[in-house]
Amino acid sequence: MSETESRAGRRGGREARRAMRAAPLADNQRPVWPGLEGGRYKPLTDADIQKIHHAALDVLENIGMADAIPSGIEVMTKVGAKLQSNGRLTFPRALIEDTLAKAARKFPLYAQDPRYDMEPWGSKVYFGTAGAAVHIVDPITGDYRESTTKDLYDIARIVDTLDHIHFFQRAIVCRELTDPFEMDFNTCYASVFGTTKHVGTSWVAPEQLEASLQMLHAIAGGEDKWRERPFVSQSNCFVVPPLKFAADACRCLEVAVRGGMPVLLLSAGQAGATAPASLAGAIVQEVAEVLAGLVYVNAIKPGAPAIFGTWCFVSDLRTGAMSGGSPEQALLSAGAAQMGQFYDLTAGTASGMTDSKIPDAQAGYEKAYNHALVGNAGANLIYESAGMHASLLGYCLESLLIDNDIIGAVQRTIKGIEVTDESIAMETIRQTCLEGPGHYLGADQTLRLMQTEYVYPLVGDRTTPKEWVEQGRPGIVDRAIRKTRQILTNHFPAHISMAVDDSIRERFPVRLPREAMRKTAAAAE
Amino acid sequence: MSETESRAGRRGGREARRAMRAAPLADNQRPVWPGLEGGRYKPLTDADIQKIHHAALDVLENIGMADAIPSGIEVMTKVGAKLQSNGRLTFPRALIEDTLAKAARKFPLYAQDPRYDMEPWGSKVYFGTAGAAVHIVDPITGDYRESTTKDLYDIARIVDTLDHIHFFQRAIVCRELTDPFEMDFNTCYASVFGTTKHVGTSWVAPEQLEASLQMLHAIAGGEDKWRERPFVSQSNCFVVPPLKFAADACRCLEVAVRGGMPVLLLSAGQAGATAPASLAGAIVQEVAEVLAGLVYVNAIKPGAPAIFGTWCFVSDLRTGAMSGGSPEQALLSAGAAQMGQFYDLTAGTASGMTDSKIPDAQAGYEKAYNHALVGNAGANLIYESAGMHASLLGYCLESLLIDNDIIGAVQRTIKGIEVTDESIAMETIRQTCLEGPGHYLGADQTLRLMQTEYVYPLVGDRTTPKEWVEQGRPGIVDRAIRKTRQILTNHFPAHISMAVDDSIRERFPVRLPREAMRKTAAAAE
Repeated sequence: MSETESRAGRRGGREARRAMRAAPLADNQRPVWPGLEGGRYKPLTDADIQKIHHAALDVLENIGMADAIPSGIEVMTKVGAKLQSNGRLTFPRALIEDTLAKAARKFPLYAQDPRYDMEPWGSKVYFGTAGAAVHIVDPITGDYRESTTKDLYDIARIVDTLDHIHFFQRAIVCRELTDPFEMDFNTCYASVFGTTKHVGTSWVAPEQLEASLQMLHAIAGGEDKWRERPFVSQSNCFVVPPLKFAADACRCLEVAVRGGMPVLLLSAGQAGATAPASLAGAIVQEVAEVLAGLVYVNAIKPGAPAIFGTWCFVSDLRTGAMSGGSPEQALLSAGAAQMGQFYDLTAGTASGMTDSKIPDAQAGYEKAYNHALVGNAGANLIYESAGMHASLLGYCLESLLIDNDIIGAVQRTIKGIEVTDESIAMETIRQTCLEGPGHYLGADQTLRLMQTEYVYPLVGDRTTPKEWVEQGRPGIVDRAIRKTRQILTNHFPAHISMAVDDSIRERFPVRLPREAMRKTAAAAE
Repeated sequence: MSETESRAGRRGGREARRAMRAAPLADNQRPVWPGLEGGRYKPLTDADIQKIHHAALDVLENIGMADAIPSGIEVMTKVGAKLQSNGRLTFPRALIEDTLAKAARKFPLYAQDPRYDMEPWGSKVYFGTAGAAVHIVDPITGDYRESTTKDLYDIARIVDTLDHIHFFQRAIVCRELTDPFEMDFNTCYASVFGTTKHVGTSWVAPEQLEASLQMLHAIAGGEDKWRERPFVSQSNCFVVPPLKFAADACRCLEVAVRGGMPVLLLSAGQAGATAPASLAGAIVQEVAEVLAGLVYVNAIKPGAPAIFGTWCFVSDLRTGAMSGGSPEQALLSAGAAQMGQFYDLTAGTASGMTDSKIPDAQAGYEKAYNHALVGNAGANLIYESAGMHASLLGYCLESLLIDNDIIGAVQRTIKGIEVTDESIAMETIRQTCLEGPGHYLGADQTLRLMQTEYVYPLVGDRTTPKEWVEQGRPGIVDRAIRKTRQILTNHFPAHISMAVDDSIRERFPVRLPREAMRKTAAAAE
């Protein structure tokens, strides 16, 4: 709240009060806010970073990428990539350096509501969802059931209300939709209707992306308006590690870049399976792959917005299964974030996946040490950060609320310790000890810092054991269930007009029933 | 295992195999080990550290400490402290600098079993228990019952078996013992009989400490042997923040220093209550208090071993209650660790307390983000790191096992990412992509790194949802309960001979029954 707004508020006008409530609190009046600057945790030294960078260039120059599609070969060879006799595309160092020089930097990721626009560069950190879970997890019984379009819409609605989830990327697969066109289209539909925050999603074929773009143009009020503020980005797995292009994804990549849609260049190798088991080797391969993607994007359209998406996953080497909650995962994602910073690109990575099937202590600790380290490393966009279980196979709506608390706390650590003459508090210490009451409970400083320096949980509990027993000994899951129900009963975003929705429903096979999108008498009970 | 030992093993001698099993694996054959070097997370800049240091010197010079006991005043004024007309002791900057110059550095903390000796200096990190919880928590029902000597012994036995808990400090109060002498003596007894790892505990009066020292001499085989390898340190709350000496603790401090027992100089202010609400101010006050304690110790005996114990706690400013699981706690403890490193002293701090009353997701995440950051900041001795709940009011044996997994994972992050020509894996990538199977599952490197680069949980779960359902959907608490029961049924340390125990029982009121200290037919069932 600016000084002006604050004064307006004091004048007591109804409009002014309404404006105040609508406007977010100014950053300095909240303990944490989106885009806090990380970078105090550095798993890689500068020398490590150089070594990884040069190794990635070697990989691209000498090994290169297999399976490029003809249109990709055409645009990439035109800028200097070489098609080798073994069918692989290799990338001379000069091409990578040239690409890095012209790649898009400092592009905002827009939201339907401009309050949620993000500026994910430098060491600024934003947290969001992501994933393609195929199950919804019941937090009490541990039941895993198939996820639906309605679930996706509900997750988006919950994200829309949570302070510490800054963007929404499609988290689950709409499994009741067997037609790929319907699935991709409705995934995008449920996401953009469910939240006004920035949305990310993916497509398996250009046709469904073209259709979705038409919907997005309609929502934006025209293609020009969409291109001014593209509020949906494409999560694009353009690579099948190790070092092979994915044909379908590449076709969608080309459409997105030409359609003004930012692209998350996502390489999701798994150390020990599709990437080297050594953490450094896994990062080298991922960096090489994403740099190849960056060449691709810039060959189509120089300076098109692309996110450096090194998502190095981890295998449990005993079984080969993914271990998203492992500490090796924290190291890989934090190291990957540092590489993105080194290139001064928007660095997107994954954190907060857990191997646990339910929101138990394991889910809590695996998410938390990953977030604490990846966040403090200064990753710009942290995907998979809330709700995910079973190493990306299951999604739990109640966990979203729990994870929102984890992220709020981690953001407080990212904000760090302010060391100034005022915060050193010499005069407060002197007065308290020599003149005052011998404690700081009622000190001016204490009251002043209550809202700005301390963050409080939404579903986390800080009662005494006595109070807790009186409340019936609730665990955090109990509180999350209650709060989730409240949100789903009451929060139905209405930022897209009925008329626009009608026009979309006339042209496309929308499968989310209107009834699911508004408060009903039954739901309100 | 060294090359020599390995060859001996292959020769097949029974003795050699026995020696191999007894010897710990060499560090480079395990993924993590005690004393890994942290320091990659730095919440404070060098300038911040300087500012805090100088402010702490100002506090000591201008405000000083109240309530020193006569013997303390005598030794401290002798080295240069000033007794002011308001009764406070102040400390000229030169005295602090002089003290810092002669303070003990690089002293090991010994264990009854030399395998567990610690070298807590530089940025080496060790995790242990601590606390004075008054309740034992049932992890299923959430029942809080009064803690007993038997519980303390059981906790020590569990710690004795866990890889990632490196020392044992008294965690609970023996509440059935109402006599202070019996309580202090038996606390020490149950601890040193329950584990061969380094023990920390505290005393409220010199008499019980003197008696305990006699026991420790007997266990060591004489006072000289004890003084050579003191395997118990004294946790000493010599200060009542803000800036007042605690009389009883000071008396015990003097006995410990003269008795060759390392002292943990513990200042446990609570930001917003007994320390400033600003995090920087809280650290300033704590640093000043512990420096005063350091003057005290070195005034008694120059170079006596003392641990720089800045345990800055946090208040929830809305209620004044302690919030041990808060993110502000992580910042305070990590910042305090940096201050200890700045002084090149052994830095002890607290991490892993949770506000949750039970081992739920909240307990998991609060412990994990604290450990991840405090551990990576390079705190030398991390107390309160396992088992604690309800901001130090409750202790849960099963949580010890869960927290052991958290610490193992955090240690893996402390070990970091090795970036060498070998780990860069260029040749492995080349072979896999150009000649090999297109994946790394069976690569030489993968098999080689399975044990050394990846850490695996003890009670954490990595099964697939399908396997998990087949197992009956256990949460981590279920697995911890089973494993805890196994340990308590089977692990009874017998490192102290029956004869020594007899001699102790003859002279002192030991209240832990012999039956609790050995496997019974019933227990073995």
